[in-house]
Amino acid sequence: MSSYAAGARPAITSVSNPRVRWLVSLRKRRARDVERLTLVEGVDELRLALEVGVKPRQLYWCDALVHDTTKHDILTRVTALGCEVVSLGEAAFVRASYREAPDGWLAVVESPECGLDDLQLGSCPLVLVCESVEKPGNLGAMLRTSEAAGVDAVVAASPVADWGNPNVVRASKGTVFAVPVAAASGGEVIDWLRGNGLTIVVATPDGTELVTAVDLTGPTAVVVGAEHSGVSSRLLAAADATIAVPMFGHVNSLNVATSAAVVLYEAVRQRGLGGCPCG
Amino acid sequence: MSSYAAGARPAITSVSNPRVRWLVSLRKRRARDVERLTLVEGVDELRLALEVGVKPRQLYWCDALVHDTTKHDILTRVTALGCEVVSLGEAAFVRASYREAPDGWLAVVESPECGLDDLQLGSCPLVLVCESVEKPGNLGAMLRTSEAAGVDAVVAASPVADWGNPNVVRASKGTVFAVPVAAASGGEVIDWLRGNGLTIVVATPDGTELVTAVDLTGPTAVVVGAEHSGVSSRLLAAADATIAVPMFGHVNSLNVATSAAVVLYEAVRQRGLGGCPCG
Repeated sequence: MSSYAAGARPAITSVSNPRVRWLVSLRKRRARDVERLTLVEGVDELRLALEVGVKPRQLYWCDALVHDTTKHDILTRVTALGCEVVSLGEAAFVRASYREAPDGWLAVVESPECGLDDLQLGSCPLVLVCESVEKPGNLGAMLRTSEAAGVDAVVAASPVADWGNPNVVRASKGTVFAVPVAAASGGEVIDWLRGNGLTIVVATPDGTELVTAVDLTGPTAVVVGAEHSGVSSRLLAAADATIAVPMFGHVNSLNVATSAAVVLYEAVRQRGLGGCPCG
Repeated sequence: MSSYAAGARPAITSVSNPRVRWLVSLRKRRARDVERLTLVEGVDELRLALEVGVKPRQLYWCDALVHDTTKHDILTRVTALGCEVVSLGEAAFVRASYREAPDGWLAVVESPECGLDDLQLGSCPLVLVCESVEKPGNLGAMLRTSEAAGVDAVVAASPVADWGNPNVVRASKGTVFAVPVAAASGGEVIDWLRGNGLTIVVATPDGTELVTAVDLTGPTAVVVGAEHSGVSSRLLAAADATIAVPMFGHVNSLNVATSAAVVLYEAVRQRGLGGCPCG
């Protein structure tokens, strides 16, 4: 038994323990919304969340599942943060886990989502708006790209999934905690964009200008839409420009997260932020 | 019963029918390699494959599972191609299917993979080389992007998954049949790139130049590496340039398919191929 477990209460072994049931309940959006909490599972995601300053409310871990190389590091860090550490037996952990192959780490953290008015923008902001994007994998991929591209905030308009969805957290590799994220109705988002003086640039295959032909150097919101239906007529009507990523193939098949990456990095290029990555 | 089924032999209903077993066997790489065949499942992927000229060897379908809106269209098209059409009962189809929610369409087609020497390059080719990329989802995403960006060919160096892997086919949305694809050892790929006069540009977080600072307008091979380990020392040593996508976040977390998209679309931009998408 590890020194961490030795100083704490015995491991929870029952799969029907109330704590385990509560962890399972947090997979449901309703429970997450009520508690304003979410789950971070897996050592890589947990480590990234810790690196960007997340303080878990509770850490659940399973000695039989974790790799010894990670154990000391993670437990030391979360203990130093004053986080409650709870040891679970293997059956209880597997029940609480939402992964196919749990690695023995599961943290409860505050929801990363804030209100539009809580977002703090820089002097020349670049914002990504995802309207009604459905797949957590796409939302997670856009968060990773946004974090890397130095985006000020990512806003879900008329969201389908919440930012605390465990599959979004997972697909984002923890970057959902590193980029400010908010969610609101389409109308609220349009009002907020205008109120903050952002140029609304909608990416759509029917865009009237090429992505490289539009000035993205001012305060800009890049808007992408749902996987199948694209951006709504309401947001299209509010657009200052509509842009297309050029497609030369037989198949118009660019993924929404790929389109977002191409547009955001075109903004990065235009803004000349690209100092030498080596130094 | 549909007119198609009416004119043909009765549906196969047994889950242990040799045809069903054979379809299941094609999920294994060894069987795909021996037969040089692969599977295309799902109406969207099948339709895209048909659009780019794939002639299925056989089409298996299940009247109880397909949507009526798609049935006539698909069956008419494959019948016109002289393809064998086989009706399966629901249990047999579900057994043959490799999806969680089968939609009643499963085709057997020739493997899309060809040899390096069979690839036909344009006068100023742009090629994507994926070295040891592991996840079918990433390979599929890169195929979609490559198809849209007008890439001449996508080459797997020291591949982990084969191009005929049903999960690659699925993630590519059928574009694996629209972009020429090949696979070979790392050494063979380097020889082939040099023999074809391609400048080897390796994308890596440690790249010495920014992606926007390197000339991608000549005959160019963009090389990306495995999800965790990146590009091998052998291919790095063969590189004419190493480039980085700028990352401004706390987390160096750009997905390999996202990096590839940013680099390929930077090449598109530099090449000035972007005529107005509206025609």
